[in-house]
Amino acid sequence: MKLLRFGPIGQEKPGIQTADGKNLDCSSFGEDWNESFFENEGLHRLRLWLRENQSKLSEIPKNARLGSPIARPSKIICIGLNYRMHAEEAGMPVPEVPIIFMKATSSLCGPYDPIFIPKNSTQTDWEVELAVIIGKRAKYVSVENAMEYVAGYATHNDVSERDFQLRHGGQWVKGKSADHFAPLGPYLVTKDEISDPHKLRLWLKLNGKIVQDSNTSDFIFDIPTIIAHLSQYMTLLPGDVISTGTPAGVGMGLKPNPRYLEHGDVVELGIDGLGNSRQVAMNDPEA
Amino acid sequence: MKLLRFGPIGQEKPGIQTADGKNLDCSSFGEDWNESFFENEGLHRLRLWLRENQSKLSEIPKNARLGSPIARPSKIICIGLNYRMHAEEAGMPVPEVPIIFMKATSSLCGPYDPIFIPKNSTQTDWEVELAVIIGKRAKYVSVENAMEYVAGYATHNDVSERDFQLRHGGQWVKGKSADHFAPLGPYLVTKDEISDPHKLRLWLKLNGKIVQDSNTSDFIFDIPTIIAHLSQYMTLLPGDVISTGTPAGVGMGLKPNPRYLEHGDVVELGIDGLGNSRQVAMNDPEA
Repeated sequence: MKLLRFGPIGQEKPGIQTADGKNLDCSSFGEDWNESFFENEGLHRLRLWLRENQSKLSEIPKNARLGSPIARPSKIICIGLNYRMHAEEAGMPVPEVPIIFMKATSSLCGPYDPIFIPKNSTQTDWEVELAVIIGKRAKYVSVENAMEYVAGYATHNDVSERDFQLRHGGQWVKGKSADHFAPLGPYLVTKDEISDPHKLRLWLKLNGKIVQDSNTSDFIFDIPTIIAHLSQYMTLLPGDVISTGTPAGVGMGLKPNPRYLEHGDVVELGIDGLGNSRQVAMNDPEA
Repeated sequence: MKLLRFGPIGQEKPGIQTADGKNLDCSSFGEDWNESFFENEGLHRLRLWLRENQSKLSEIPKNARLGSPIARPSKIICIGLNYRMHAEEAGMPVPEVPIIFMKATSSLCGPYDPIFIPKNSTQTDWEVELAVIIGKRAKYVSVENAMEYVAGYATHNDVSERDFQLRHGGQWVKGKSADHFAPLGPYLVTKDEISDPHKLRLWLKLNGKIVQDSNTSDFIFDIPTIIAHLSQYMTLLPGDVISTGTPAGVGMGLKPNPRYLEHGDVVELGIDGLGNSRQVAMNDPEA
């Protein structure tokens, strides 16, 4: 299944995309795609419900905004430096264990929403990433069992302000958490539809030109290793998002000069089987 | 007002503590003390409602468990090294701007719940801290206006695993996020009841012996500075928790040898006007 959410910011309704590409309104299912939904076998219940009801569902208007495909989760955890060449371009050592950091969940937005360049930002950067969405509570999980805890996957742009991240004192969270720094989607694809999440091309274009182009086969740490590792340090809750790191080609690493987002720049990104998203960078209207 | 929550984990109900120390059940108010409550002028509405209804409320049984005084927030943000002597004992430079890091919100628990020593932990440590609870959405806030965004304060134990935090690769979040690593309460005290949050004694005892004893007058960065600073990097939402850092006297800094929590250790802590909490350390039953 492909789950999505649509409607104005903060008032999103649940929907699905069908195998033939139609977006259908699932409001009558009576639940949002949130922690409680995943926790209470929602994916299974939705599947059964669709068998009876899919033919009665109305199509979502073509011009409807898409929101994040899941409601705000308890956490967004990101893996740093999970591709060898990205660690090199960032001038950082290849990690021996997964590097993790948090992104404020208030940064979540829809796949076609604008990226807001925050006040005082000079180094807003892009990062295409495979996001894993957790399906059930995970604590002290083994590598062998880790994939049981996955609900599905989504395309994620882990937007990052490099100056805030690296030179404003301490932890990376400062450069990862501005509003609209986490465009997610267009949809969550349930794991049964992805035969091998470690063999997916992922790419990102800036103003039509490819800048990131890699494959999840280049992960330093694979998904089971990441889930098992994280679950030793904190309990993963249903609906939590784990973003698995970005490959080489971010603005910070471009040669001969770094290139950061400016008002009007267009970012497009995609991952095999997970769909594409597109964001226009703009100065934060609240700045 | 003093807000609290009581009942089994995950099924907490809202309550208050009256001026004469009675705990009253506010379930009939019909709301939990959560983001939506704070966002929709809940404190003001509750105050008016109590004028009419307080005399009809039933007392909470003395043996009821207290939960976190607020429902799980969108984020728990902690300030690192905000007391000079703690920076020294940690062997770290006194920061020039607030050091911030996140704590997984799944670590939140009640003020008398056990501290769970996580699997493979050898360095679980204590940190008494003044927690500030945000009352309304805060973005790009000035130092001058920052206090308008405060709902109230609570006693917080920012439990930390030093080995996970400092030697497991990268960011501090790994050592801050285990279950029951954030005992909060006994209650949230609304800001009108605290005449000067920068003049509060805070202390922590290990097995009856004082190990931390300081005053928020020793903050390197005061509350308005912290809120203004944070709100430049991320949007603070109603109900969010900002923990303002711990003074000297954590286990890591004890001389001649560090001392970490062991199964059966008793931690008591308190802050002037915000009440005391008490936790017994125990090996995580899920480990």
